[in-house]
Amino acid sequence: MKEKLNSILREDRFEHSVNVMECAVKLSVCYKEDPDKAAIAGLLHDCARFLEPEEMLRLCEKLDIITDDVRKENPKLLHDVLGVFFAEKEFGVSDPEILSAIRSHTTGSENMTRLQKIVFLADFIEPGRKFKGVEELRDLAFEDLDKAVLKALDHTIRFVLKKGQLLHMDTVNARNWLLRDINK
Amino acid sequence: MKEKLNSILREDRFEHSVNVMECAVKLSVCYKEDPDKAAIAGLLHDCARFLEPEEMLRLCEKLDIITDDVRKENPKLLHDVLGVFFAEKEFGVSDPEILSAIRSHTTGSENMTRLQKIVFLADFIEPGRKFKGVEELRDLAFEDLDKAVLKALDHTIRFVLKKGQLLHMDTVNARNWLLRDINK
Repeated sequence: MKEKLNSILREDRFEHSVNVMECAVKLSVCYKEDPDKAAIAGLLHDCARFLEPEEMLRLCEKLDIITDDVRKENPKLLHDVLGVFFAEKEFGVSDPEILSAIRSHTTGSENMTRLQKIVFLADFIEPGRKFKGVEELRDLAFEDLDKAVLKALDHTIRFVLKKGQLLHMDTVNARNWLLRDINK
Repeated sequence: MKEKLNSILREDRFEHSVNVMECAVKLSVCYKEDPDKAAIAGLLHDCARFLEPEEMLRLCEKLDIITDDVRKENPKLLHDVLGVFFAEKEFGVSDPEILSAIRSHTTGSENMTRLQKIVFLADFIEPGRKFKGVEELRDLAFEDLDKAVLKALDHTIRFVLKKGQLLHMDTVNARNWLLRDINK
């Protein structure tokens, strides 16, 4: 899988993918999740990023992949649904847990499984990531998975506001759901 | 209406209401909206704030006012739907434009009318409000209503994140809708 991924992704994206894989494995060990599933989901989460956003949009239309307006209006976001498509078709992944972790790695989603949380978070805190607060988030990730994911979702929302992009409901629903769960 | 409102609201809330009324009138003149409607909606927007949040929740249940989970979990938010109720029952307001401006003054909403935008914004920028960026927002309010409302919605979302509260979908939908409208 690594070789194949290396042959299709830009070098920096491949390095990021390996970083996310390694980070997802560490988190899976910490939280007693299946490390093989974490590795595959982490490695392949960006496997559709060899496409340009406009190509992603065209491909989704061609493949009749049902998606939503916010993803269509910001087609870079489509790399999650297309990542699921390529993970299945090109990398032979059929495990629904792995596929759902790829599916939700950018926006998050309501009712995320532990594996989904791990991959979402690994994508956020892998060693190549640089943003204000990343060190604290890296520490928190190994102390409290849910609180770390909540912080990452908050960060996503602030980033979207700053960039003047549309906010995806999956992100808002993920945050409200997790916040309720933490406060229960 | 002013006298009646003064008799039920705490002094600082009454002063805020008069400020919002005055600010809404100024904005309505600027944007050629009906100043009388703006005055009434601005004056009465917080008319249910004489109740404590728990009383708001009980009253909504008693009156069978249909609302949503986020408002119920943060019952202070119910002062908008209850504001509509008291504006109708106690202050004799029947104009749907005024009532909808009261209804959306805290969360915002998709497809806001100009009057809704004005009251939402007046509540944000009235002279008693103090927050980082309020001066710029006051200037922007009289230059570009939509951009100012968008900024205020962004501010609302950041405030909710900071407070660790649930994000209301009305606010997110209002922001996405307005952002699309501005970028059209």
